[in-house]
Amino acid sequence: MKYNTYTTKPAPTVKIVGAGPGDADLLTIKAYKAIKNAKAILYDALIGKEILDFANPEATLVYVGKRANNHSYTQEEINQLMVDYAYNYGNVVRLKGGDPYIFGRGHEEYNYVTSFGIDVEVIPGISSAIAVPELSNIPLTKRGISESFWVLTATNRKGELSKDLLQAVKSDATIVVLMGVGKLNKIVELYQQNGKQELPVAIIQNGSLKTSKTVVGSVNTIAEIAIANKIGTPGIIVLGEVVNTNPAFILEKIRYENK
Amino acid sequence: MKYNTYTTKPAPTVKIVGAGPGDADLLTIKAYKAIKNAKAILYDALIGKEILDFANPEATLVYVGKRANNHSYTQEEINQLMVDYAYNYGNVVRLKGGDPYIFGRGHEEYNYVTSFGIDVEVIPGISSAIAVPELSNIPLTKRGISESFWVLTATNRKGELSKDLLQAVKSDATIVVLMGVGKLNKIVELYQQNGKQELPVAIIQNGSLKTSKTVVGSVNTIAEIAIANKIGTPGIIVLGEVVNTNPAFILEKIRYENK
Repeated sequence: MKYNTYTTKPAPTVKIVGAGPGDADLLTIKAYKAIKNAKAILYDALIGKEILDFANPEATLVYVGKRANNHSYTQEEINQLMVDYAYNYGNVVRLKGGDPYIFGRGHEEYNYVTSFGIDVEVIPGISSAIAVPELSNIPLTKRGISESFWVLTATNRKGELSKDLLQAVKSDATIVVLMGVGKLNKIVELYQQNGKQELPVAIIQNGSLKTSKTVVGSVNTIAEIAIANKIGTPGIIVLGEVVNTNPAFILEKIRYENK
Repeated sequence: MKYNTYTTKPAPTVKIVGAGPGDADLLTIKAYKAIKNAKAILYDALIGKEILDFANPEATLVYVGKRANNHSYTQEEINQLMVDYAYNYGNVVRLKGGDPYIFGRGHEEYNYVTSFGIDVEVIPGISSAIAVPELSNIPLTKRGISESFWVLTATNRKGELSKDLLQAVKSDATIVVLMGVGKLNKIVELYQQNGKQELPVAIIQNGSLKTSKTVVGSVNTIAEIAIANKIGTPGIIVLGEVVNTNPAFILEKIRYENK
């Protein structure tokens, strides 16, 4: 007995998914399911192999990262790719590091794809801004020590020092600077000009990965400590008294200062 | 054939786990595994049944929340319970809403348990501060509109308006106020005193849950809108131009203003 079968193209949908800070186990269940079920995945730099391995072996994986000297896609090209893949493959995942709505242009991507009448879902991810300090046992808030935290990038889209940083340096919030290691000297200078020479600072390189490295010091010492420990990018800088709440760091600091 | 078996007590360990904003699918894989493998779970208010259902049916679940008029544990009692359960059960999960290191006293718990020589691991969770606005399609940062975001609670531990809020109102950052709905009038007044009457504001009640409700307005209109829509706690307040980047909200605002 035979049936006629009719195949219709699946409805186009795009899921904009946060992959978290690196460790595959820090994906959400929702992100894991989305990756597993996707017909095509457009993924950024810093998305590890372990995470991509969750994809269906028959899914099409496309690297659209913007790193190093490889050919890089413009934001406009990425936007268009999402739409094209959604029409051709149906179920598309746009996979981004950390959380897609924190310095990630995820919202631009959402609005672009939605403007075609395509269903878009955003799936939050663990943001490195919070989790990376946390995994080095630095809480961004702590009763009696810090009542708030403020997250910035070191530079604006023109490459200048973020104007918000000029405000942040004067506040009592814990300050988290993303993508700031290359501007460390400028940040130190700004804090020194504002009389905060002794404020504790931590730099954490390579986030949640096994290669993670944390150094601590004060505004006055951190640049030298970073060089001595060969701290490179990507790194997250935390400025605030909360850095001193980890007893291990205090010992490390004493050792450094007694050298 | 018979073997002699020797049972030794399992080594005590405590995992301080973030449960995310509510939706069980927004747990991380790591948190899911920790809950599944725990012999005992000490959990807070706002941890949903779906999440607790991941636990082994033989695990001991203890509610240690601090809500409403129920008997509530003090922080000192919770600290001691973690240690007692770790010695008696071995593998204990301390399950907290959102992320355990954001306004959660997770770091105090970490330090307390560690001081007994017990192994402690912290597992980050999706923070409501970021994910709840995101699920209402409000990005906390957006190129050309907001270069940073600042997260606060409305009040400090004494119940006074947070002093950091007095700084935040003057900044260009997107401001996210947690646990602030009860202080909405005070916050509005503060923003009005600082000449920010027209700044867009959103309030999102019940975060990632199906009962979620979002209202938008300006500093001048939001209190009235909140009352008209019966907005209650728990809710998250977002103040900043990013609120206006969701086209649906702009329409809603026009409708409200033309009423």
